[in-house]
Amino acid sequence: MKDNSTGKRKNEKLWGGRFADSSSPITEEISASIQFDSRMYRQDIKGSIAHAEMLNKMGILNDEELKKIVNGLDEIREEIEKGKFLFSRSLEDIHMNIESRLTEKIGETGKKLHTARSRNDQVALDMRLYLRDEISLIKELLKSLIVLLVKLAEKNIDAVMPGYTHLQVAQPVRFSHHMLAYAWKFIRDMKRLDHAAEACSLLPLGAGALAGVNYPADREFVKKRLDFREINLNSMDAVSDRDFILDFLYFASVLGMHLSRFCEEIVLWSSAEFGFISLAHNVTTGSSIMPQKRNPDIAELVRGKTGRLYGNLFSLLTVMKGLPMTYNRDLQEDKEPLFDSIDTVILSLEGMNEMLKGMKINKDRMKKAIYRNFSTATDIADYLAQKGVPFRDSHEIVGSIVRYCEEENVDFFNLKTETLKSFSLFFDNDIEDIIDPARSTERKISQGSTSTDSIKDQIFLIKSRLQI
Amino acid sequence: MKDNSTGKRKNEKLWGGRFADSSSPITEEISASIQFDSRMYRQDIKGSIAHAEMLNKMGILNDEELKKIVNGLDEIREEIEKGKFLFSRSLEDIHMNIESRLTEKIGETGKKLHTARSRNDQVALDMRLYLRDEISLIKELLKSLIVLLVKLAEKNIDAVMPGYTHLQVAQPVRFSHHMLAYAWKFIRDMKRLDHAAEACSLLPLGAGALAGVNYPADREFVKKRLDFREINLNSMDAVSDRDFILDFLYFASVLGMHLSRFCEEIVLWSSAEFGFISLAHNVTTGSSIMPQKRNPDIAELVRGKTGRLYGNLFSLLTVMKGLPMTYNRDLQEDKEPLFDSIDTVILSLEGMNEMLKGMKINKDRMKKAIYRNFSTATDIADYLAQKGVPFRDSHEIVGSIVRYCEEENVDFFNLKTETLKSFSLFFDNDIEDIIDPARSTERKISQGSTSTDSIKDQIFLIKSRLQI
Amino acid sequence: MKDNSTGKRKNEKLWGGRFADSSSPITEEISASIQFDSRMYRQDIKGSIAHAEMLNKMGILNDEELKKIVNGLDEIREEIEKGKFLFSRSLEDIHMNIESRLTEKIGETGKKLHTARSRNDQVALDMRLYLRDEISLIKELLKSLIVLLVKLAEKNIDAVMPGYTHLQVAQPVRFSHHMLAYAWKFIRDMKRLDHAAEACSLLPLGAGALAGVNYPADREFVKKRLDFREINLNSMDAVSDRDFILDFLYFASVLGMHLSRFCEEIVLWSSAEFGFISLAHNVTTGSSIMPQKRNPDIAELVRGKTGRLYGNLFSLLTVMKGLPMTYNRDLQEDKEPLFDSIDTVILSLEGMNEMLKGMKINKDRMKKAIYRNFSTATDIADYLAQKGVPFRDSHEIVGSIVRYCEEENVDFFNLKTETLKSFSLFFDNDIEDIIDPARSTERKISQGSTSTDSIKDQIFLIKSRLQI
Amino acid sequence: MKDNSTGKRKNEKLWGGRFADSSSPITEEISASIQFDSRMYRQDIKGSIAHAEMLNKMGILNDEELKKIVNGLDEIREEIEKGKFLFSRSLEDIHMNIESRLTEKIGETGKKLHTARSRNDQVALDMRLYLRDEISLIKELLKSLIVLLVKLAEKNIDAVMPGYTHLQVAQPVRFSHHMLAYAWKFIRDMKRLDHAAEACSLLPLGAGALAGVNYPADREFVKKRLDFREINLNSMDAVSDRDFILDFLYFASVLGMHLSRFCEEIVLWSSAEFGFISLAHNVTTGSSIMPQKRNPDIAELVRGKTGRLYGNLFSLLTVMKGLPMTYNRDLQEDKEPLFDSIDTVILSLEGMNEMLKGMKINKDRMKKAIYRNFSTATDIADYLAQKGVPFRDSHEIVGSIVRYCEEENVDFFNLKTETLKSFSLFFDNDIEDIIDPARSTERKISQGSTSTDSIKDQIFLIKSRLQI
Repeated sequence: MKDNSTGKRKNEKLWGGRFADSSSPITEEISASIQFDSRMYRQDIKGSIAHAEMLNKMGILNDEELKKIVNGLDEIREEIEKGKFLFSRSLEDIHMNIESRLTEKIGETGKKLHTARSRNDQVALDMRLYLRDEISLIKELLKSLIVLLVKLAEKNIDAVMPGYTHLQVAQPVRFSHHMLAYAWKFIRDMKRLDHAAEACSLLPLGAGALAGVNYPADREFVKKRLDFREINLNSMDAVSDRDFILDFLYFASVLGMHLSRFCEEIVLWSSAEFGFISLAHNVTTGSSIMPQKRNPDIAELVRGKTGRLYGNLFSLLTVMKGLPMTYNRDLQEDKEPLFDSIDTVILSLEGMNEMLKGMKINKDRMKKAIYRNFSTATDIADYLAQKGVPFRDSHEIVGSIVRYCEEENVDFFNLKTETLKSFSLFFDNDIEDIIDPARSTERKISQGSTSTDSIKDQIFLIKSRLQI
Repeated sequence: MKDNSTGKRKNEKLWGGRFADSSSPITEEISASIQFDSRMYRQDIKGSIAHAEMLNKMGILNDEELKKIVNGLDEIREEIEKGKFLFSRSLEDIHMNIESRLTEKIGETGKKLHTARSRNDQVALDMRLYLRDEISLIKELLKSLIVLLVKLAEKNIDAVMPGYTHLQVAQPVRFSHHMLAYAWKFIRDMKRLDHAAEACSLLPLGAGALAGVNYPADREFVKKRLDFREINLNSMDAVSDRDFILDFLYFASVLGMHLSRFCEEIVLWSSAEFGFISLAHNVTTGSSIMPQKRNPDIAELVRGKTGRLYGNLFSLLTVMKGLPMTYNRDLQEDKEPLFDSIDTVILSLEGMNEMLKGMKINKDRMKKAIYRNFSTATDIADYLAQKGVPFRDSHEIVGSIVRYCEEENVDFFNLKTETLKSFSLFFDNDIEDIIDPARSTERKISQGSTSTDSIKDQIFLIKSRLQI
Repeated sequence: MKDNSTGKRKNEKLWGGRFADSSSPITEEISASIQFDSRMYRQDIKGSIAHAEMLNKMGILNDEELKKIVNGLDEIREEIEKGKFLFSRSLEDIHMNIESRLTEKIGETGKKLHTARSRNDQVALDMRLYLRDEISLIKELLKSLIVLLVKLAEKNIDAVMPGYTHLQVAQPVRFSHHMLAYAWKFIRDMKRLDHAAEACSLLPLGAGALAGVNYPADREFVKKRLDFREINLNSMDAVSDRDFILDFLYFASVLGMHLSRFCEEIVLWSSAEFGFISLAHNVTTGSSIMPQKRNPDIAELVRGKTGRLYGNLFSLLTVMKGLPMTYNRDLQEDKEPLFDSIDTVILSLEGMNEMLKGMKINKDRMKKAIYRNFSTATDIADYLAQKGVPFRDSHEIVGSIVRYCEEENVDFFNLKTETLKSFSLFFDNDIEDIIDPARSTERKISQGSTSTDSIKDQIFLIKSRLQI
Repeated sequence: MKDNSTGKRKNEKLWGGRFADSSSPITEEISASIQFDSRMYRQDIKGSIAHAEMLNKMGILNDEELKKIVNGLDEIREEIEKGKFLFSRSLEDIHMNIESRLTEKIGETGKKLHTARSRNDQVALDMRLYLRDEISLIKELLKSLIVLLVKLAEKNIDAVMPGYTHLQVAQPVRFSHHMLAYAWKFIRDMKRLDHAAEACSLLPLGAGALAGVNYPADREFVKKRLDFREINLNSMDAVSDRDFILDFLYFASVLGMHLSRFCEEIVLWSSAEFGFISLAHNVTTGSSIMPQKRNPDIAELVRGKTGRLYGNLFSLLTVMKGLPMTYNRDLQEDKEPLFDSIDTVILSLEGMNEMLKGMKINKDRMKKAIYRNFSTATDIADYLAQKGVPFRDSHEIVGSIVRYCEEENVDFFNLKTETLKSFSLFFDNDIEDIIDPARSTERKISQGSTSTDSIKDQIFLIKSRLQI
C-alpha cells in the first residue's frame, strides 16, 4: 500500500444508519484492516465483477449498470496499481474502500453492488482467491527447489559422505542420496500444498451474512466464473470456516520444519569442523567486528523463520478455539498470520534456491570423513550373518572388535584378517573388501538404498512425477 | 501394559558388544519407552512376521525357521494379551522386549530375525501400522457423529432459532441448518483424516539403519503383505520422516477446534439465559457444594481438550525443528503426543456422541429468541432493494428505523405500515409478512441457505456422500 | 519508517573486506532488518553515545572526537524524526545505517565508534533499552485499566448478578466483585511485567562479539549511564541470551489470556440473551448487510488478538530451541514477534479502556437473572448444616428439593416452609430469608467474599497498593 | 496409583441428590481424573487437616470430631502409601475418593468436613501445595547442575576452544567460560522458578464455590498453618486463577530451551568431526544394527523433551483462552500438562547431571580447533586500532589479509611480518604475539570476558550467590 491516509474521504461508514455516534479513534484503529488487507484488492475486484455479472444474470443489474460497475472497478484497480488510490482507514477494509470509491465514481449504481452479498461471504471469497493465487507461485518455487536438488544429485553422484544417525557417523552414503531425501520430503510438501489449494476451492459467496440471501443467486455461475471446484452448501459453515487458511499454515509449518532440518545441515557442513561444503560469497555475510567471518546467514535465517511459521499456525488455531457460530470479529485476525506465512515461505524458498545454486561440494573432505567411527561395522556384521552367524551374534562380535580397536588404539580399516579371525573363524580374506568404506554404498542393494542404481531410479521417478 | 518389571530378564542389551559399562539407572529411565510403546505390540509382531516371510522368500530363513518365528511371535502376542508377558525396562522398547523373548523361546533362530532390518525402520513401520489401525476406528466415530447430526437435523427441521454473528442475533435460521454446518466441518475433517491415513501408507521397512541393507530385500512383497500403497524409495528419508504423525496431529487439532466451537455453543445453549437445549442427567455432573448444579461437563471437557491436541502438535513440531539427518533419538518423543491425541480424539468423539444422543431441544425458547434484536432487518432492506432502492440506501433507511425503535422503545415487529412509510414511501402492506421472523428462513432462496428445501438437499447430499 | 530506499548510499558493506562478491539481491532481502528495526533508532543512538563517552573515558576518543560523535548522533536522531533520513536496505540494519551516516557526516572519527563493540552486544543492548521504554508505557496503560475497574466497582457496588460456574448460575455475586476479580488478575500481570523489566536490566554491552574485548571497557560507567541494574558478567551468555524478550512475550500471553476471558464475558453480557450491559455506540460497529447490528467488535478483536500474543511467544521459543552458542543469525527473528506483541498489548489495553469507559450496566437485567437456577441452594444447605445436619446430608436434601421443583414445575423461591419441612424437619420460618437471592451476597462473611464489606476492603487494598 | 478399580465402593456420587439418572460410563470416563490426580493425595490430606482444624477453631467441629477426622485422614494416607487404598473412578477425583473413604471409616463426622469448602477452592489449594513441593525438589536439582558446571569450569580452566558465532569459529574462548555461560542461564532459571513458587503461595481456600462462604472462616489461621504468603482476597479470582501453573510451565519451557541449546552442543562436540568431548559408556546407548555406535542419547532426549515442555505450556494457554468466569470444567485439563512438565524437568535435570559427571574433555582436539578460521582476526584489527587506525579501516585491512590467505592458500598464523606490512605499515614484530590464538583469551581484559581472571571472578560470584 503506497498511501495510507487516515483523512476520511467520506464521513459516514457504510453501515452507519442506526448509530448515534461515530466511532472513536481507538475503535477505528483497532478495527481497521485496510493497512494489511489492501493487498487483496485484485481478488476483491475480481470477485465483485463476478458477483455483478451474476446480479445482471438475475436481472438485478441491467446491462448498462453492469458495464458501469465493471468499468469502474477496472479503473479502481488501475488507480491502486498506479499508487493513486487514497486508502481510508475510516472505511475499515479493502471491501469498503473499493465499494465507496466505486459509488463516488459511478454514483447510485455503485450502491447496488452489495445486493445479495455480505462482507462475511465477500471476505471469505477474497481470502480464498488470494491464497489460491499465492499457492500457484509457491508451487513453482517449491518445484524449482526440487529441480535444484535433483541437479545437485545428478552432478555429484560420485560423492560419498558419512551418513549420520545421532550425529554419529553411521554408514557411508552418497551425497546425492542425502539431497534426494530432502527432495522426497518436499514432494510430500507439494501434496500438502495441493490439499490446501483444494480447500481454497470451496465457494462461500452466496452465503450472505450467514443464512443465505433472499435472491435466487446463481452460485453455479459464480463458481464457474471464478473457477471454483465446489460450492459450500451451508451458508453458516461458509462464513465461519477458516479451515483452508489453517491447511496452508500447516503446510507452511511442515515445509518450514523440513527447511530447518536442511539448513541445520548446511550450517553444520559449512563449519570448519565438517567442511563438506562452501557457500558462495554472495549468500554469506560478514561480521561488524570479526574481519574473517563469512557466515551462512541464509541458512540460519531460513531455519529461524520456522519460528514464525509455527507461531502463525498456532496464532490462528488459538483465535478459532471456542468461537461460537458464525462470523465473529476475531476472525479478522486470520489475515496477518496468513500473509506473513505466505511471504515467509516465498522468501525462504527464494533464499534456499539462491544458496544452493552457488554451493560448492568438497568431495575430498566428505570422503575423508567416512573413514571415521568404523563406518562399515554393519557391513561386517552382515558379512558374518551371510556366512551363517545369527545376526545378533555377528553384531556382538563386531561390537567386540570395535572395543578392541578403541582400547588398543588400532585402526579398524587396517585390521589384519588374522586379528579378525581371533574374533570369529568365519572371517576370511574377502573381508578386506567389505571393510573398505569407499565400497560400502554399492553393497546396499535393497530398493531405495544409497547405491548408485537406486539413486538413478529415484531421479528418474522424481523427474517423471514432476514432469521436469 | 499390565506388568512393568524393571528386573532384567537378560542382563545384556542387544546392542551391548562394544560397551565397557552397563547403562546407569538414569540412562535407562530416560531412554526407556516400553511403558508407552508396548501398546504397539500387535503391530510390531505383524511387521516382524511380514519381515520373516520376506527373509524366507530371500532364502535367509528356511521354512522351518520361519515357522518357529511365526509361532513364537503368535505365542508372544497371546502372552501379552493375557497379561503374562514380563516387560523389562532394561530392554528399552517393545521391539527389543519381543525380540529378546522370542530368542528365549525359540533359541538361535530368533537371533536371525533382525537381519536386514534396523530399529530405525522397524519403529517407523510400527508407528504407521498402529496409527493406520486407530485411524479406522476414529473414522467410524467421526461418521457416527455426522450421522447423529443429520438425524438431529431431520428430526427438528421445524425448529427456528436465532442465527448469530458476533453473538448478536443476526437473522433467523433453522436449528437443522446450524447442526449441518457442523456436519460439513466434520466432513472436511474426514478428508484430513484420509490424508493422514494416506501419509501412513508409505512403507519404510527395508531402509535399514539409514542407507538401505546389504540384502536384496523384496520390499514389494512386504508392501503387499502389509497392505501399503507405496514404498518409500529413499532410505534416509524413510527413517527420518515423521510427516505422517504430524498430519494426524494436525487433523486432530482442527477437529478439536471444530469440537471446541460446537461445545462452546452447547455450553451457551445450556445456560439459563439461552435455554435452547437441555442435556440428559447422565451426561451432566453436579457440584460438591452447590446442590442445584447440573453442569455440561462433557462439553466443557471436550472444549478444554483442544488444549492438549494443539499442545501435542506443537510438541512434535518443536521436536523436529532443526534436527539433522537421519534418525536422532529426539524422535522417540513422537510417541506420547501421538498416543495422547489418538486417545483424546476417541474419548472426545465418544463423549460428543453420548451427549448429543440425549440432548433435548427447547423449540419454544428458540422461537421466542428470534423476536429479539430486529432479526429481520436485512429482509426489510432486501424488500426495499427489490423495489428499486439501491441496497446501500435501503440499508441506511432500515438502520434509521432500528434507531427510531430503540429511542422510542417501540417493538419493531409491530410497527405499523404507516410509521414505516414515514421512513420510505416504498413500504407497502406486504411488509408485514416480511417483518415476521417466523417466515424469514423460507425467503432465503439461494443455494445453501437456511430454507427447508436447502436443508433437505444438504441431508440428501451428506447421506449419499457418506453412504448412510 | 517514513522512507525505505533500496538505493545504496554507500556501495560497500561495513564488513566487506574479505568478500569477493557483493551480496545477491535475495541475500539482502532476507538479511535486511532495517524495515522493522529502525524503530529502535532512539535507543541505538542513546547506547552509542554512552559507548562513546566510555571510549573517551578510556582515552580511545579524545574530547573533541567525542563531541563530534555526540553531535553527529543527535543530528541523525533529528533527521530520522523529521523524516529526512534515507534508510538503506543494503546497510542491513539500524546500527549500520546510523554508523554509516555518522561517518558520512563527521568523517574518520565516525569509524572509531565501533571500537570495543560488536553488533552482537550492540543489538542486545538496543533491544533491552527499547523494551524497557515500552514496558513503562504499558505499565501505565495497565494501571489505567485497573483504575477503571476499581471505579466501576465503586460506582456499582449495589448491583447484584449471577455468579457462574460452568456458565450455569451458581450463586449471586456483586458485579463489583466480578470486576475486582479481573483487577486482581491484572495486578498479577503487573508483577510479571516487573519481572520482564528486571530481566531487561542486565547490561550486555562490553561482551564484544562473544569473548569480551581487548580493552579495559568501563562497564560500570556504562551501566550507570544507561541506568541498568546489573552487568552481564559472561560475554558468551550476554550475546546469546534472549530470556528478557521471552519474559515479555510470556507476560503478554498471560495478559492476553486474562483479557480474552474478560472480553468473552463482555460479548456474552452484550448478547440479547444476557443483556447485562450495553456498549457505547462509538465502540461498536455495524454490518454491511444487516442494518440492525451493533457488534462488540473491540471485545472480539481483543479476544482474537490473544492468538498473535501466543503465536509470538511460541515463535521465539521455536527459534531458540536447539541453537548452539553464541550468536546465530536466527536470533534476528526475535524482533518482529516482540514488536508485534508490544503493539498488540498497547492497542488492546487502549481498546479495553475505551470500551469500559462507556459501558452501561443494566442492573435490572442482572437482578432478574439471579432468580434463575436455584441460586441460593448452597445457602439452604449451609442453613441445614448450621442446624447440625452434616453438610453432605444437607447437600443431598437440597438436591432433592431442586429435583422436586423441576419435576413439579414449582418456583423454588416461593416454596412454602411446610413443603420444605417435608424434606427436613430442620427447616423453620427463618428459611424464607435464606432462600431470597437478593440477600445472599451479604451472608458470605468470609474474607475475600462477595459481600459489600469485602469489596470495600479490596478496593482500599488495591488503591493503596497501586497508590491511586 | 497402584490400584484403579472401576467397581464402585459407594453407588452414589457425593453430589447426586438432584439427579434422576446415574452417569453414563462415557461420562465417567471423560470426567474422571483420579488416574492422574491421585498423586496429590498427600497435599489433599494436608489441606483437609488444616481445614478441619479451622472448622474446629470456629466451633463447627468439636475436639473429638477433629481428632477422628485427623486420625482418619492419617490412616488413609498410610493406606495409600501401602498400596491398600482402593481408588474408584466412579468417585471421580482424589478429593471425593478420600472424603468418601473417610466417611466410610469414621461415619457421620466425615460428612462435616466439606462444610465451608468447595471442590473449586480445594483443588486450587491442592495444586498449589503439590507444585510448591515439587518446586523445592527441582530447585535442588537445578542447583546441582550449576554446581557441576562450576566444578567443570574450575577443573578445566586451562582448556581453550573455539568460540563460535553462526557455528563458524569466531574467537578463542576458554571451555570454562562456555560452561559458565550456561551456569548464568540456569541462575536466571532459578529466579523464574522462585517467581513460580511465589505465585503458588496465594491461598485460595475459603473462596468456596466462587462467592465466599457463609461462615467466618479464619483464613489467616489456614494461611499460617499451610505456610502461605498471602491470601487471595477475591473469591472469584481464587477459583478461576491458574496463573501459578502457567508460571511454572513457562519456567519449564525456558529451562528446556536452555537445556536444548546445551544438549545441541553436547551432540555436536561428541561428533567425530568436533571430537571435543567423550561421554561415558554408561550414558550412551548402542544401535540394534550398527555394532560400532555409541550415541549421546541423553543429550538428544533432553533436547527432544523441549517439545513437550513447550507443548504443555501451549496446551494450558489454549485451555484458558476465552473462558468466562469462574470455574469451568475445562480447568481440569490443567493437571496433566503440569504433572508431565514436572516429571520431564526432573528427569531431564537428573539426566544432565549424570551425563556431565562422566564427560571427558579432549583438550587437544579443542586446542587444535582454535587454529582454524583465522580465529584471531579481531585481535589483529584491535592491534591496528590501538595503533591509531580507525576501527572500520583496520577491520577492512584484516579482511583483505584473510582474503589474501584464502586465495593464496597461505596459513594465516604463520604470515611473515613483512607480508603483513604490505597491508598496513602499522604492523610491527609484536604482531606475532597477537596472531597466536593460544594467547588470545588473556587479551580479553574487559569485565565478563573469557580471560582466566574473569572466569575466576565468575566462579567466586556464583558460589557466593548460591552459597556453595
